Amino acid sequence: MTIQAASRMPQQDRSRATRRRLLEAAVDCLAAYGWAGSTVSVVAERAGVSRGAAQHHFPTREDLFTAAVEHVADQLLADVREQLSPEAQGDTPRTETVVEVIVRMYTGELFRAALHLWVAAAREEPLRARIIALENRVGREAHRAAVEFLGVDERAPGVRETVQATLDMARGLGLANLLTDDGARRAGVVRQWARILDGVLG
Amino acid sequence: MTIQAASRMPQQDRSRATRRRLLEAAVDCLAAYGWAGSTVSVVAERAGVSRGAAQHHFPTREDLFTAAVEHVADQLLADVREQLSPEAQGDTPRTETVVEVIVRMYTGELFRAALHLWVAAAREEPLRARIIALENRVGREAHRAAVEFLGVDERAPGVRETVQATLDMARGLGLANLLTDDGARRAGVVRQWARILDGVLG
Repeated sequence: MTIQAASRMPQQDRSRATRRRLLEAAVDCLAAYGWAGSTVSVVAERAGVSRGAAQHHFPTREDLFTAAVEHVADQLLADVREQLSPEAQGDTPRTETVVEVIVRMYTGELFRAALHLWVAAAREEPLRARIIALENRVGREAHRAAVEFLGVDERAPGVRETVQATLDMARGLGLANLLTDDGARRAGVVRQWARILDGVLG
Repeated sequence: MTIQAASRMPQQDRSRATRRRLLEAAVDCLAAYGWAGSTVSVVAERAGVSRGAAQHHFPTREDLFTAAVEHVADQLLADVREQLSPEAQGDTPRTETVVEVIVRMYTGELFRAALHLWVAAAREEPLRARIIALENRVGREAHRAAVEFLGVDERAPGVRETVQATLDMARGLGLANLLTDDGARRAGVVRQWARILDGVLG
């Protein structure tokens, strides 16, 4: 490391930490206040950052919220990969564990935040194009992770669609959990779904 | 019919027609402008009804929109029952047809409207309680219809959860259709899910 690089580090670290605080505050705000209530100022205040600094990192409101959902989705996917790794599971994870972990991605705060953004995007053009691109990328990665953890071969007929159905069901369970705690019913659905997958894919 | 009742009829008919126009306009507005953009005035204008007449039928905004989603959901369920009746199908409908018709309920304008209402309800208390009650009632009826048309016995282990999973998947497919036309992918998922149901429930 050059002397010059070393002297720049604390500034870079601070900048990265600020960016991260903004992204996490943006997701919190979306989940709590929805899109209409989540302005850049509200997020900056929650993150303890000046409005100017927020705009330095994210020139537009769309930049901020798209990056926020992307950041948290990437984190969540990394967590899932860690939870389902052979090291964490001892061996190949059981199908029910895989389905449970996938469904958990869609029933937490991120899904709630993303849902507000998705629904707002249905009516707001600059946001819409951004969210479609994000949905494609995150959807592809969730699909790839599900295939990997279920240990299936997508070239076999019906496998691809079965994995898609699993992710669609997880999304539907997320929606069912929006207004009330749907945990008890959900546990039964997840157990049965895992049994079905074992029969179909096993 | 008494002379008095006969003379009252046109007035009752007019009132019923006005109510119906308001309900349908409310769903259109929700789907088009979301909750924030859908005030009673906007709906009244779209329905060609005075604001006072709208408030005579629906004293609060929550009354209007809850009734609207309920009205359209009931209509949709009645349509589904007709489409899947033995008369329309010739015989017992094929599983794929049943899944298709169920999924269609969640991918049309009603679902889009309901989604705006659900997401708004997550943050607005008077609306929230109303929507939870509505969700319970409509959910129960959709479940009952699915059980009936799939021709299954819920007392058998796993059947209830499999039907629930089917409805959760349909909801997830609805969400996936919000920003882009997901029809091609959806057709593959529906076909595969019907195949799985035939194996599991058959």
